[in-house]
Amino acid sequence: MSMNRRSLIGAAGLALTAPALQGAQAAEAAKPAANAAAKAAPPHVTKILAQWILGSSYDALPEPVRREGVRSFLNWVGVAIGGSHHETVDVAVSALQPFSGPPQAGLFGRTERFDIMNAAFLNGVSSHIFDFDDTHLKTIIHPAGPVASAILAYAAMKPVSGKDFLDALVVGIEAECRIGNAVYPNHYDAGWHITGTAGVFGSAAAAGKLMGLTEQQMVYALGLAASQPVGLRESFGSMNKSFNPGRAASNGLFAAILAAKGFTSSDGMIEAKRGWANTISTKQDWSQITDGLGTRYEAQLNTYKPFACGIVMHPTIDAAIQIRDQDHVKPEDIQRVDLKVHPLVLELTGKTAPKTGLEGKFSIYHAAAVAFVEGAGGEKQFSDRAVNDPRVVALRQKVVPVITPGVDPAQVDMTVTLNDGRTFHRHIEHAIGSVEKPMSDAQLEAKFTDLAAGILPDAQARKVMQLCWSLPELKDAGDVARAGVAGA
Amino acid sequence: MSMNRRSLIGAAGLALTAPALQGAQAAEAAKPAANAAAKAAPPHVTKILAQWILGSSYDALPEPVRREGVRSFLNWVGVAIGGSHHETVDVAVSALQPFSGPPQAGLFGRTERFDIMNAAFLNGVSSHIFDFDDTHLKTIIHPAGPVASAILAYAAMKPVSGKDFLDALVVGIEAECRIGNAVYPNHYDAGWHITGTAGVFGSAAAAGKLMGLTEQQMVYALGLAASQPVGLRESFGSMNKSFNPGRAASNGLFAAILAAKGFTSSDGMIEAKRGWANTISTKQDWSQITDGLGTRYEAQLNTYKPFACGIVMHPTIDAAIQIRDQDHVKPEDIQRVDLKVHPLVLELTGKTAPKTGLEGKFSIYHAAAVAFVEGAGGEKQFSDRAVNDPRVVALRQKVVPVITPGVDPAQVDMTVTLNDGRTFHRHIEHAIGSVEKPMSDAQLEAKFTDLAAGILPDAQARKVMQLCWSLPELKDAGDVARAGVAGA
Repeated sequence: MSMNRRSLIGAAGLALTAPALQGAQAAEAAKPAANAAAKAAPPHVTKILAQWILGSSYDALPEPVRREGVRSFLNWVGVAIGGSHHETVDVAVSALQPFSGPPQAGLFGRTERFDIMNAAFLNGVSSHIFDFDDTHLKTIIHPAGPVASAILAYAAMKPVSGKDFLDALVVGIEAECRIGNAVYPNHYDAGWHITGTAGVFGSAAAAGKLMGLTEQQMVYALGLAASQPVGLRESFGSMNKSFNPGRAASNGLFAAILAAKGFTSSDGMIEAKRGWANTISTKQDWSQITDGLGTRYEAQLNTYKPFACGIVMHPTIDAAIQIRDQDHVKPEDIQRVDLKVHPLVLELTGKTAPKTGLEGKFSIYHAAAVAFVEGAGGEKQFSDRAVNDPRVVALRQKVVPVITPGVDPAQVDMTVTLNDGRTFHRHIEHAIGSVEKPMSDAQLEAKFTDLAAGILPDAQARKVMQLCWSLPELKDAGDVARAGVAGA
Repeated sequence: MSMNRRSLIGAAGLALTAPALQGAQAAEAAKPAANAAAKAAPPHVTKILAQWILGSSYDALPEPVRREGVRSFLNWVGVAIGGSHHETVDVAVSALQPFSGPPQAGLFGRTERFDIMNAAFLNGVSSHIFDFDDTHLKTIIHPAGPVASAILAYAAMKPVSGKDFLDALVVGIEAECRIGNAVYPNHYDAGWHITGTAGVFGSAAAAGKLMGLTEQQMVYALGLAASQPVGLRESFGSMNKSFNPGRAASNGLFAAILAAKGFTSSDGMIEAKRGWANTISTKQDWSQITDGLGTRYEAQLNTYKPFACGIVMHPTIDAAIQIRDQDHVKPEDIQRVDLKVHPLVLELTGKTAPKTGLEGKFSIYHAAAVAFVEGAGGEKQFSDRAVNDPRVVALRQKVVPVITPGVDPAQVDMTVTLNDGRTFHRHIEHAIGSVEKPMSDAQLEAKFTDLAAGILPDAQARKVMQLCWSLPELKDAGDVARAGVAGA
């Protein structure tokens, strides 16, 4: 077998460092670049981002950003508690227990303790199980999971002030969402689960910031993060989906821990020709990472789901609850529910006779019916019990969605006709939980309470919420981790 | 902000499972496929591979494959010992010690003990530091690192017969090299460090086999491995390069450990439209994975480097050592060394006056000179000492490489002229270490001995080698791990 050019370069890659590497790269640069994006030298994105990460501080964060950071955190804690006794977490806990390091951090809703990397993984998995966590709609990144899982585990081991914790959370969300913006949508369309591939940067940035990395160490931490992207969309629908934000959290922490002791990487792992963005995406918009750092915040665009299902069903649930509660409509009085919807609603959620809670998440018929019967759309409304409730089953057969031009996928037009002939109408332009109509603090609390019910005693859940709201005043953010375990 | 179609699908991705997912996928499938490779439904690659992995056995392995497996293992142990006190390992050990689980496995050449995932990572890093490990030339994958690091750590914890260990090693190498073949060269050219991106499959396959996974669990282990590719070429020249095979080893082990307890993934993570190969590469040749399983073995194509530098310098070192030893030429008698070389040799290794050992790895002048002076090309010949040795410095100034048409990059034509006018000539068609002219067992032993010198006492190094050679007869392959630690 004769060795080809690649074999030789690769083998010489033994340590394609310094002068020889430059020589080889210069030779390559002289060739016509196949990728147009590679033609213009990109800015030193990794270094610029590292500098901004280290320069950020709680004091410099605008008030609305602080507020959204706290809301992101509270929402994340709630979903992490809510998922904590799902089979996915049970399996992962039992698999990893024999290999865990010292009991440095607890798990929400559970008694087991793990080293911080395993704890970050497990809380990250737990927080994504219901797909009920926060969403950065521009990229569909679920920002809190990879970041908060990592730094809360760290804070459980080593005291971190609430202000520093919140700053690190915001910084991590900026890093992952901005890097996500730079490659979205091509990167996501190709098949990557962007929460895991971009999330690892958020974890490394936030954890590295709390560890006090130097600028060079932060550059290396981002480089080691770039070397560990997590997640493919093919895994959606399996435990592997929740695996991704969890592993992004532990991988980013791993990167920061190594960099803190002097483990090196390249200086330009995000932007270099054979770095992350050029390798993992056909689109690279560096300005998305570097422009407006410290003036506009992606963290401020975070949204929270009021309902434990895909966003296309949210307007319908919102309308049903409004008519139920504001117009005092009883499910047994309903003769017919007419919905004007976008085609995507039926494409994604057209299941007429769901048998399980999971199937209910893909039935606009069930969603409307259960919202009228129970006045909610939480995880409990997508249980096997709810889907087989005779009142819900009866009502869902009266739901008539009609594809209607001009209705946006995120909208619905609902008309309810009662047995007595009266009608009630709602047009939902923006459903609750959208950027335009965000969940109120009270609604976030109700969601949290519902998720924690049956896992933590009410008083404990309230205490955890209180700690989340007062995050900027906490002397030790690790108190949230300690307050949220079972039996605390 | 209005939510776009992607946001909606992504959010509905809540659990884009079963019926709804199928609906969405059917809708997408109806569109013209952008990627031609996605048009034809691929075979069930993940399942076929999982079945073969579980069906393999030591008894069914052809003798030459067993032999090459043992040689791969011995070479890997040698390089892992050789790198064990490099700064890269020192840094990683000190960073990870505070987080390690129970002391389940040792590290070659060192006293510290770690849980098996950290031990796999650290031995994997150690084995790649000098880039002196084995090479599958078709893909430039370094096959042993990700696989052996994972299963030796496992064997250190739980007894595994030498036969089962060797079978798992071969199976892991097949998995990673075949998957590498399917996407090479496009995947590598894009910027991925294929040893880490394909290596994770090798680790998961081999470890999962030893753990006794069911077929479904093995499919999931491969899926969780697919979710954790490691490494970008931009990191070459930094510690991050050695990081990659180490992290591939620990990620694959992580995947197998989770799958063994019931953690799920998708059934077609390698071949699905949004699975690994379609997402991470523009080329997918499924036949490279599925054809000839159990009849032709990639493990049989493994090669070992006799010299601790890029392969383009190997023919020159080979020629110099031959002339030195067979023709009894002394360095001080040399007037001139003429080399006919391919242009790539000067492009990659054209440094005339290296000052450090690392720079010496990129100097064909140094390589020729040190081979004449010391009769070797090991790690010691690429040290600061060797590069600054006055005899070497004097001789390297007499080396005259000339770019010559018709000379392959893996060849050299060397003519040595002595002060007394005599000349000696060698044409190296295939250098020692190539597939055509593999290192002999004795040469592998010499390499091992040289690498272990100064790290393990000679008697201990010999004992470890003896255990490697007798791998198929060992009752417990973990003996190799135990025999190779410092102070054993």
